[in-house]
Amino acid sequence: MRLLFHLPLSPYSRKVRLALAEKGLPFELKLEKVWERRPEFLALNPAAQVPVLLEENGLAIPDSYAICEYLEEAYPDTPTLIGRTLAERAECRRLVAWFDGKFAREVDDNLLFEKVMRPLLGRGEPEAAAIRAGFANLRHHLVYLGWLAEQRRWLAGDVLTLADLAAAAHLSALDFLGDVDWSVSPAAKAWYARVKSRPSFRALLNDRVGGLTPPPHYADLDF
Amino acid sequence: MRLLFHLPLSPYSRKVRLALAEKGLPFELKLEKVWERRPEFLALNPAAQVPVLLEENGLAIPDSYAICEYLEEAYPDTPTLIGRTLAERAECRRLVAWFDGKFAREVDDNLLFEKVMRPLLGRGEPEAAAIRAGFANLRHHLVYLGWLAEQRRWLAGDVLTLADLAAAAHLSALDFLGDVDWSVSPAAKAWYARVKSRPSFRALLNDRVGGLTPPPHYADLDF
Repeated sequence: MRLLFHLPLSPYSRKVRLALAEKGLPFELKLEKVWERRPEFLALNPAAQVPVLLEENGLAIPDSYAICEYLEEAYPDTPTLIGRTLAERAECRRLVAWFDGKFAREVDDNLLFEKVMRPLLGRGEPEAAAIRAGFANLRHHLVYLGWLAEQRRWLAGDVLTLADLAAAAHLSALDFLGDVDWSVSPAAKAWYARVKSRPSFRALLNDRVGGLTPPPHYADLDF
Repeated sequence: MRLLFHLPLSPYSRKVRLALAEKGLPFELKLEKVWERRPEFLALNPAAQVPVLLEENGLAIPDSYAICEYLEEAYPDTPTLIGRTLAERAECRRLVAWFDGKFAREVDDNLLFEKVMRPLLGRGEPEAAAIRAGFANLRHHLVYLGWLAEQRRWLAGDVLTLADLAAAAHLSALDFLGDVDWSVSPAAKAWYARVKSRPSFRALLNDRVGGLTPPPHYADLDF
């Protein structure tokens, strides 16, 4: 069986789980505590990061960008998650880069890292200034996301793409922490409700993370 | 004429310049001081980042990942810079993610940002601890790069790919600052000498950046 090494709150792992499910490709999850630097895992990915996809034929693909592009090329008969035309594909990838790059630096690094990873790695208490910056940045991103959702059916255009999955992956990890104030943007909230009610999302909503309990609305499709 | 909005020391801009040149696609450079947040530029890329490629037909493609994947798809008759087989392409993209993600966080953020961007943005003096961390991390990356270069003709395999261009783009920006101690890895140095002597590299070596002078070996092909 296809295997995905992951961490439950890693937005990049979540994006790949959503992509595999949207494409109807079955897989098993394997929790990888990357900070333990397990030699067998480092042999698969010297960057010591999740996600890593291990195909049944032995091909190991590290990194969510490499995995998502691989899935498009290896399984051309599954629904495309990047788009059809050059312009659609550029817009999808621009937004994937937006969430996996800009959003990650401005929001995840300040909220997910400070609240989850810093204590886990024994690097002391969360820094209050970082958390404040993270919340302030998150508001700007929600407004932008809501603006996109008002212009288009899905974030990159008429069809669901990796742009939606990347955005939902990051937001769902933060929502698990109860950090997303959805009242900032009703349009962003309506978009998220649509993504969240897809079958591909179900497994994410059932995730439980050691020591953490999500807020009541986390798995509620009518939140 | 095709236009590339860039900054001379942006590794991501450099990667795209190399990719365009390797593919034989002519372009003009346009310096974009992103911190001035020019409205016409924000309309092309709300992320306010370079590079952005503007095609003659009006299609604007922001983000170096989106641009490089676009170039492969839009110009299939040019040499591929990602590879032929699924395994080659996964390995190329893994390494692009390594340099554009891991290397950027561990090295660029500590050296390029502290030495160039922080003073430019008026955010005070470079932080000594960050610079020390950047140099320490750079040594590890040079050793890994040298190890790859000893196993393979090019970083991702038998042919030159975006993996080489991404690595060379980041290292060339640091080399411009005189920050790369090539004695750490003779194999990395030999690989860089090979990349540097390609015609695609020539324009980068002629870059001059306001207020900064590169070290004498920067443009020397037999450094």
